[in-house]
Amino acid sequence: MAESGGEATRIMVAVNESSIKGYPHASISSRGAFQWTLNKIVRDNPSGFILLFLHVQVPDEDGFDDMDSIYASPEDFKGMKDRDKKRGLHLLEYFVNRCHEVGVSCEGWIKKGDPKEVICHEVKRIHPDILVVGCRGLGPFQRVFVGTVSEFCQKHAECPVITIKRKPEEMPQDPVDD
Amino acid sequence: MAESGGEATRIMVAVNESSIKGYPHASISSRGAFQWTLNKIVRDNPSGFILLFLHVQVPDEDGFDDMDSIYASPEDFKGMKDRDKKRGLHLLEYFVNRCHEVGVSCEGWIKKGDPKEVICHEVKRIHPDILVVGCRGLGPFQRVFVGTVSEFCQKHAECPVITIKRKPEEMPQDPVDD
Repeated sequence: MAESGGEATRIMVAVNESSIKGYPHASISSRGAFQWTLNKIVRDNPSGFILLFLHVQVPDEDGFDDMDSIYASPEDFKGMKDRDKKRGLHLLEYFVNRCHEVGVSCEGWIKKGDPKEVICHEVKRIHPDILVVGCRGLGPFQRVFVGTVSEFCQKHAECPVITIKRKPEEMPQDPVDD
Repeated sequence: MAESGGEATRIMVAVNESSIKGYPHASISSRGAFQWTLNKIVRDNPSGFILLFLHVQVPDEDGFDDMDSIYASPEDFKGMKDRDKKRGLHLLEYFVNRCHEVGVSCEGWIKKGDPKEVICHEVKRIHPDILVVGCRGLGPFQRVFVGTVSEFCQKHAECPVITIKRKPEEMPQDPVDD
């Protein structure tokens, strides 16, 4: 046996919401990275792994939705925060449920801030064995405008990083969407 | 179960010889990357994985050793090629033996050329699920002079890439050595 009985391999998976309008759900690249981790790494050995889902919420991510809202009292902001929290929990619920189905242990948590900075900070704090990050697989021209979390993590995260690109057949109409 | 019965995950591991003088043996970063793959990915599920060892020999890698040699006939060059071949086989033997011990299937082969180019070319040809590359973990200043195969592969290899840095306690006296 390679290393039977050792502590489980701790895989941190950075997940985010889809940018495509509609009911809140996980982004295409998050789901792809998660499914790849199950298929290619965890396989039929769920007890060997723990998945750690980190969702970083960008404070002004929902700016466009809020354009028509009127903020007149502290309660209005509380409503906004509650909605953010619900969306984040809904996202984590998807991944936690899927882990439960396949029998792999997991934990999920939400942080606010700049995703690339927060992910690297959490790696430093949590010390996972591997960080898995989905990416849209954009060309160099498109990348200039949208930035890439995965490239930053490859350079700065203090653990081995696997970047999983979207499959071409999963590319949405606008490739910048996810 | 996550994905029981699916085809084994094919992990390509790029391996090279140590730059430290003495009996030919695997570099520190190659051994580290291999051991990490066994400990953290394969674990106690050897039947779920196939390891593919690619060793790229740089044609003039042994230039210094050959400085004192005299080449006067085709036989002299044949002797050099035979020696290269033996060293390459010795290197692969180490990894294949270790795989045999832990019960994981493997294949190994040797190519000649520029390692970063050949690795990416072989990824295109072989379609592994993951490429694992060891790296010395040098600072930005040292990297300028030695180049890094891992950074090139991160950008250009057509599959997910995991870069495994050497542990600080394994760093040789001269960190450019490996």
